[in-house]
Amino acid sequence: MIKAGVYRIPMNGPGDFSGLIGLVENGTIDPHGVIAVLAKTEGNGCVNDFSRGYGTLALKVVLSELRSQTLEEVEEDVVFIMSGGTEGVLSPHATVFTRTDSDEVANSSDKSLSVSSGHTRAFRPEEIGTVPMVQEVAKTVSRLMEEAGIKDSSDVHFVQIKCPLLTSERIRDAETRGEHVVTENTYKSMGFSRGASALGVAVALGEVKEDAISQEVIAKDWSLYSSVASTSAGVELTNCEIMVLGNSTEAESDYLIGHGTMEDSIDLAGFLEALRNSGLDFKELPSEDQKQRVVNVYAKAEADPSGYVRNRRTTMLTDDDINHTRHARAVVGAVVASVVGDPLVYVSGGAEHQGPSGGGPVAAIVRR
Amino acid sequence: MIKAGVYRIPMNGPGDFSGLIGLVENGTIDPHGVIAVLAKTEGNGCVNDFSRGYGTLALKVVLSELRSQTLEEVEEDVVFIMSGGTEGVLSPHATVFTRTDSDEVANSSDKSLSVSSGHTRAFRPEEIGTVPMVQEVAKTVSRLMEEAGIKDSSDVHFVQIKCPLLTSERIRDAETRGEHVVTENTYKSMGFSRGASALGVAVALGEVKEDAISQEVIAKDWSLYSSVASTSAGVELTNCEIMVLGNSTEAESDYLIGHGTMEDSIDLAGFLEALRNSGLDFKELPSEDQKQRVVNVYAKAEADPSGYVRNRRTTMLTDDDINHTRHARAVVGAVVASVVGDPLVYVSGGAEHQGPSGGGPVAAIVRR
Amino acid sequence: MIKAGVYRIPMNGPGDFSGLIGLVENGTIDPHGVIAVLAKTEGNGCVNDFSRGYGTLALKVVLSELRSQTLEEVEEDVVFIMSGGTEGVLSPHATVFTRTDSDEVANSSDKSLSVSSGHTRAFRPEEIGTVPMVQEVAKTVSRLMEEAGIKDSSDVHFVQIKCPLLTSERIRDAETRGEHVVTENTYKSMGFSRGASALGVAVALGEVKEDAISQEVIAKDWSLYSSVASTSAGVELTNCEIMVLGNSTEAESDYLIGHGTMEDSIDLAGFLEALRNSGLDFKELPSEDQKQRVVNVYAKAEADPSGYVRNRRTTMLTDDDINHTRHARAVVGAVVASVVGDPLVYVSGGAEHQGPSGGGPVAAIVRR
Amino acid sequence: MIKAGVYRIPMNGPGDFSGLIGLVENGTIDPHGVIAVLAKTEGNGCVNDFSRGYGTLALKVVLSELRSQTLEEVEEDVVFIMSGGTEGVLSPHATVFTRTDSDEVANSSDKSLSVSSGHTRAFRPEEIGTVPMVQEVAKTVSRLMEEAGIKDSSDVHFVQIKCPLLTSERIRDAETRGEHVVTENTYKSMGFSRGASALGVAVALGEVKEDAISQEVIAKDWSLYSSVASTSAGVELTNCEIMVLGNSTEAESDYLIGHGTMEDSIDLAGFLEALRNSGLDFKELPSEDQKQRVVNVYAKAEADPSGYVRNRRTTMLTDDDINHTRHARAVVGAVVASVVGDPLVYVSGGAEHQGPSGGGPVAAIVRR
Repeated sequence: MIKAGVYRIPMNGPGDFSGLIGLVENGTIDPHGVIAVLAKTEGNGCVNDFSRGYGTLALKVVLSELRSQTLEEVEEDVVFIMSGGTEGVLSPHATVFTRTDSDEVANSSDKSLSVSSGHTRAFRPEEIGTVPMVQEVAKTVSRLMEEAGIKDSSDVHFVQIKCPLLTSERIRDAETRGEHVVTENTYKSMGFSRGASALGVAVALGEVKEDAISQEVIAKDWSLYSSVASTSAGVELTNCEIMVLGNSTEAESDYLIGHGTMEDSIDLAGFLEALRNSGLDFKELPSEDQKQRVVNVYAKAEADPSGYVRNRRTTMLTDDDINHTRHARAVVGAVVASVVGDPLVYVSGGAEHQGPSGGGPVAAIVRR
Repeated sequence: MIKAGVYRIPMNGPGDFSGLIGLVENGTIDPHGVIAVLAKTEGNGCVNDFSRGYGTLALKVVLSELRSQTLEEVEEDVVFIMSGGTEGVLSPHATVFTRTDSDEVANSSDKSLSVSSGHTRAFRPEEIGTVPMVQEVAKTVSRLMEEAGIKDSSDVHFVQIKCPLLTSERIRDAETRGEHVVTENTYKSMGFSRGASALGVAVALGEVKEDAISQEVIAKDWSLYSSVASTSAGVELTNCEIMVLGNSTEAESDYLIGHGTMEDSIDLAGFLEALRNSGLDFKELPSEDQKQRVVNVYAKAEADPSGYVRNRRTTMLTDDDINHTRHARAVVGAVVASVVGDPLVYVSGGAEHQGPSGGGPVAAIVRR
Repeated sequence: MIKAGVYRIPMNGPGDFSGLIGLVENGTIDPHGVIAVLAKTEGNGCVNDFSRGYGTLALKVVLSELRSQTLEEVEEDVVFIMSGGTEGVLSPHATVFTRTDSDEVANSSDKSLSVSSGHTRAFRPEEIGTVPMVQEVAKTVSRLMEEAGIKDSSDVHFVQIKCPLLTSERIRDAETRGEHVVTENTYKSMGFSRGASALGVAVALGEVKEDAISQEVIAKDWSLYSSVASTSAGVELTNCEIMVLGNSTEAESDYLIGHGTMEDSIDLAGFLEALRNSGLDFKELPSEDQKQRVVNVYAKAEADPSGYVRNRRTTMLTDDDINHTRHARAVVGAVVASVVGDPLVYVSGGAEHQGPSGGGPVAAIVRR
Repeated sequence: MIKAGVYRIPMNGPGDFSGLIGLVENGTIDPHGVIAVLAKTEGNGCVNDFSRGYGTLALKVVLSELRSQTLEEVEEDVVFIMSGGTEGVLSPHATVFTRTDSDEVANSSDKSLSVSSGHTRAFRPEEIGTVPMVQEVAKTVSRLMEEAGIKDSSDVHFVQIKCPLLTSERIRDAETRGEHVVTENTYKSMGFSRGASALGVAVALGEVKEDAISQEVIAKDWSLYSSVASTSAGVELTNCEIMVLGNSTEAESDYLIGHGTMEDSIDLAGFLEALRNSGLDFKELPSEDQKQRVVNVYAKAEADPSGYVRNRRTTMLTDDDINHTRHARAVVGAVVASVVGDPLVYVSGGAEHQGPSGGGPVAAIVRR
């Protein structure tokens, strides 16, 4: 039997994990049970967002002490996914996922939240954003589904991936070896990497057929997408770190997860439907009591590539002072926070091949 | 009898008023009836936002041709309020207000939307953000209420003011003359000017007693505020341009205006209440049909001075890459747009003395 | 005989041409002699830089009054080149170029500064950044050389071009007509347009052979470039406006122009050589007296596409808060201003096919 | 006898100290001799610059392994000064300072570079930017002069201080305890802290009399300043970390240090004089050979509070997209790099009470 724990912890800065330390000290969390941490750190979410690397290092140091492991051992055992960008009301925080496996058999045939995590092999610069990346991600997601005790693809509600990006150094490295990278624009490489990772999820879950994948469709053909993938690029890693969340009869916990789709960044109805799919039963808006049962929301945001939302011209894509992913996160974050009444939610930018163009997937974990 | 017209016109850039020209050419708008234009232009909404001045000049040139007046005559007759900043989904647009006065008496005793506009005398740099500015604004608002046929303060639902700010040149000018300005920080001067203007509204409407006003409370004591003031600072003027919107029995039109208060930037309930106050009768969320009746929404947004929203730390005030008013506009714009299903709404930043601290007033004009 | 005048005028904002008005009022400038204005306005120099359009409109209104012409007539007669971005110490200003033609024959066989200006036909969105644009620019530059009385290409020292860019609307327009644009990224389109325009200059002056031009080399093969082109993209026009500056025996004035090449953005030696080429005779650094003789400096700046300067990693290209052209202008502006002792110099960003990769051309007009 | 070592190490990111590891592995640096590291990291240099905290943590982890110490022991023994902001050509790097003390007596009576480092006690939020902070810094600087074997204040050429700033949390903390902070604006608190620290240096070196210090002059009276202080604020510490550099007869090394003053950000002559004061003998510009002898340059930069440089209006202070310290660093960095031919130089922003208003101190370490 799998027992999954979910703990949402506010952060006072990218290096602040005092909340986690407190929960370990008061016995709420067993540090050895931590398998993944999904954090929203307060950088710009773009290439030069160092809050992600900082958060990762700080958390490794903290877990190294709490678990009496070396930094390398912690790195091997725990998946760290730091997503930068807390524009608007979004509030920096981490969700700590724990998992305990036992030989007990689950009491009920009801499904509960289950979680698994792992990583792909490291990618060379020239592989980032390419078909081999899609394939490697698909393989790893399939393995992680199995490890989470999830048989049916429809029980997978959120697959979070942290993927690498190209830097000037990595491009140089590839070119020195005579290899070709998918783009020489470091910022743009984030989109390719997020896109290929999301397509990997789509292939694993049968949302997109493997033979529909070619270099030409990656970061191009937006009709191909996964409805549960959430991918986020960072300079601090060279492989993909992956976490799979879904419901399983092999798991037993107080939590359920569900998801929905926001067709665009202000799709209030789409988000409300995601809450209903997660087990909240309401007509128009959730009650105060139901809002309290929401553990966290995980949404993807992107500026519509057309520049238009509901046929109105927005300035996200033509604003050269603020990156468009920052605009998009601010919007989706505000919509989600205004409904659940809490800015401590997770919204990640850049939704290439994650939900429909201009929109994105949104999942919620809800206490029964 | 007063007949007020309201026309919402998308803009393709700060200098684009082709939409207005089209409505004049097809006979919808009589250019001589235009008394005020309230636009959302796509600059950063801060000191160096030139989209406001550009929009103002372009509109003057357009109206000069449409009305066969010189630029100076247009300037004298029409109030131009350009508010910069279309962060997130906000879409650049103008609301054109027209007014025709006739000797007819209104058919019904029901109130309808009425509008009036005018301006204060020019302020010297050393007056910006001070008590004399509060007094001058109060005097002008009282006059404009009368001109709009509004007897009762509670029938005033929106007072939009465009006010001046301090520039390096203006500070220099005052100092050369041995005068003292309220702050030497150009950006900060916008807050003082917006605050003093809003307190002028509060005094005129009896929301704040005149003897409660002193230099010490301006941009300091946030317990003093107006619930219907919306003030916006711009580099391109030295006086205040003011527009008063309310309901009056002396007016006859298809429109009604109402307002509410958002207690913070994600106060969904507060915004829904404003829609109800404007004449839409719904329980939880407006219907598709009711959304269609919304002509425009006018909201103020500000970052909570505490840095916290619903007791969660936000990063608006500590972000030195994006000004906090930009974060705040993105949030309120997203909440409003997600409810009415339209990004073409007006959200203006910097709500000093406009509604409660961290929140702001929100008004809606609704078709009967 | 051609008589060229050059007037450098500080601006207090993008719409401020009071300096020009003053010079007309005191008889220094005959407004009918103005053929081109080259201004440095204080926007971000990127897609959403509205200071350029604002400056252009404001200047048209001013010249319309000074010359008793309609706005359309002014537009036809005068070339307006507004280049956005005054990062670092750069100070907003305009250089006003005047020209009077007479039947007199020049007194001396010495060359003097000559100037001519004009524009290409309007380009359709799908032509921006393409071979037809290169050809049209080349044709117009050749005509303007002739009009400036310049026979030898080596006497051309600065060709300033203002060129159009793609906006979301223009891309939509082309796509509606089934046409293909060179890029769907509005920011990137500025580089294509600047690049094609610069190659047009290179072809006209024989720096690049016409048959070396194909779509494949535009904004790609940086070995092809002009050493005197300075091109700048703006949202406010659809054709190219061009000004040619050089020395001619048919001209008579107090001014000489010369140019040099900065191999990278901190190439102090390259800039000093440009000053020497313009007629200042010094060994290591110009004297105070010589600095006074500098009328203005016109330089191009760009971030080295490699990300490296003198083999050191810079962060210009990986900074997603500040566009790399802004970094580059700040650097070249500081180097130039530190030598001439004046921040009122012209540095324009984005040097595609303008001088060597990572560097750019720099010209100086010097009083004899 | 004191033996000081100076090593300049390029960084590939805020967490990259592979260059240091390499120098330790090849025997060049003894990790136990490291007493201070002064780094230029690539954040925005403002409140939300996490590259500083990241760099500090990463370096502690590296030194902890190299020295076989705990993180706490490293923190106690080594001074870490991370200054954010590599605008323009500035290239991220660290200068590692080592020191070995022996009983030997220096061979020669010539002075050589000496170095010492240490820290003040922690400051409570309400002390930041106040007179007690000035006094505590002065006391510590005096002690460090002694430890560096420097008798005469005129032999001190650079005092680098890393000082704390106020965050929303710290302000809350003080207010909870009924204490008053110097400003509630987190960004502004950086200036107060840098200013008080610099005045501490000025008091210690006799540049400003102790009785001239009162709360009223801090960050106000710019006529009081130190010509050798360089202070930099960061969110990651609560005390001041201080490093003193000067020349001493008790030290023996290949290096000499000297300093000069840049009267404004483009004061080329001021910087050249600093190079001469450091031991380079040249007339107008240093030779290629002399440039090679420059180990590093340490300069302070600030936007002139007047907004004007050489009587020309700059836009640094009115730019709400880019903080003015970022503009200033880009300018001074470009001037310095263009002379020494190397972007790997140290320029730190915000020069309150450090050199004359709008300018700043600049020091150079030169190989004999």
